[in-house]
Amino acid sequence: MIDYKNIKVIGFDADDTLWVNETYFREAEQEFVKLLRDYETPNKIDQELFKMEIQNLDLYGYGVKAFTLSMIESALDLSNYNVSSKTIEAILNIGKTMINKPVDLLEGVEDVLKQVSKTHRLIVATKGDLLDQERKLEKSGLTKYFHHIEVLSDKKEANYSNLLKHLDVKPSEFLMIGNSLKSDVLPLVNIGAQAIHVPFHTTWAHEEVTEKETNGKSYKTISSIIDILKLIK
Amino acid sequence: MIDYKNIKVIGFDADDTLWVNETYFREAEQEFVKLLRDYETPNKIDQELFKMEIQNLDLYGYGVKAFTLSMIESALDLSNYNVSSKTIEAILNIGKTMINKPVDLLEGVEDVLKQVSKTHRLIVATKGDLLDQERKLEKSGLTKYFHHIEVLSDKKEANYSNLLKHLDVKPSEFLMIGNSLKSDVLPLVNIGAQAIHVPFHTTWAHEEVTEKETNGKSYKTISSIIDILKLIK
Repeated sequence: MIDYKNIKVIGFDADDTLWVNETYFREAEQEFVKLLRDYETPNKIDQELFKMEIQNLDLYGYGVKAFTLSMIESALDLSNYNVSSKTIEAILNIGKTMINKPVDLLEGVEDVLKQVSKTHRLIVATKGDLLDQERKLEKSGLTKYFHHIEVLSDKKEANYSNLLKHLDVKPSEFLMIGNSLKSDVLPLVNIGAQAIHVPFHTTWAHEEVTEKETNGKSYKTISSIIDILKLIK
Repeated sequence: MIDYKNIKVIGFDADDTLWVNETYFREAEQEFVKLLRDYETPNKIDQELFKMEIQNLDLYGYGVKAFTLSMIESALDLSNYNVSSKTIEAILNIGKTMINKPVDLLEGVEDVLKQVSKTHRLIVATKGDLLDQERKLEKSGLTKYFHHIEVLSDKKEANYSNLLKHLDVKPSEFLMIGNSLKSDVLPLVNIGAQAIHVPFHTTWAHEEVTEKETNGKSYKTISSIIDILKLIK
């Protein structure tokens, strides 16, 4: 069970927890498929782009710049080096368009933050491009509710342990709220911290987990972020 | 004058302060010039790449991924869309090679950190790609001397003010040490913090400052990082 009384700091994931993100990646993938459709089937293009992203993950990390570089590398591969310069330019533009997307807040987010920030110290704990995430937070108008933003290079147990050390709070005093079981929930539970899962309708394949991984883990799932107000008073 | 007695936290810039970095960017630029030499003069290629980097700075920020994307965009421009797919691949590989470079510590760095970490809390305060900078710190073997690493999306006065708020120290209690007058020294002096300038032999054009900007500003310049041991006891 989650012990809400002892919580000192609450971390909110950003993408697909506070605002829409995965939807934009899916749209970008569809644009990419259109650009490469002379060379391969949509299914094959999707698969190869995903493989490339995972292959480059250690090197590039998360975020739009990494995604753009992987799209370019995939385009060379999928076309057997026949892709045109204009298509490369179109891929660069897919990335730039993503960075310039408006920030579309999810329902209930601002109400929750307004309430919870009165009683708890809030931080944003997100991965992705540092500049891009800072910019999204600024565009969102939510900055005033957060003590600060922590952009993590990954969201594994070690990253969260470092974060808690840096925040100077015990695991049991930290609650993380996010849409990804893999990144926002399980690593926290595994280090003795608290977590609430708020699913988003779309999950990137890399963030999916098996039933075995969640089996016996203690966390709470809520269907809308607004339900947090019933849990944390 | 710098008041070393009140200093609680010391921030070290990373690239070209703790380890070699600009040298690798210059080598990469030379590789890029070679790849594009059929289309333009080396001088023109250098200029156009720099212009592209500055044009994309707001969108992409600093670091190797941003640099790689700007090289690709420049290659399309400089070749009037005649650049080959193989050249695009070669540019991607320039970026990957940069990310995989060994970390080459500057002389005296480890001695300084060993001493100063006994009496002060040290942090790394750097800009660039988050994952890349974390990885370089780990490769460097210097992690043990630092309380943590702060990767900033930029190094302007506002970024440092946020950092000090986040660290919970007054400006006068913070000393920054770095090779860039523009990024590591002047913004600190301007917000009432302390700074020591340790020049590196190569400075990126974007980091250069005019004499007017440094005029009347109170900071210390030392020729080697080892001289810090004479200043901070």
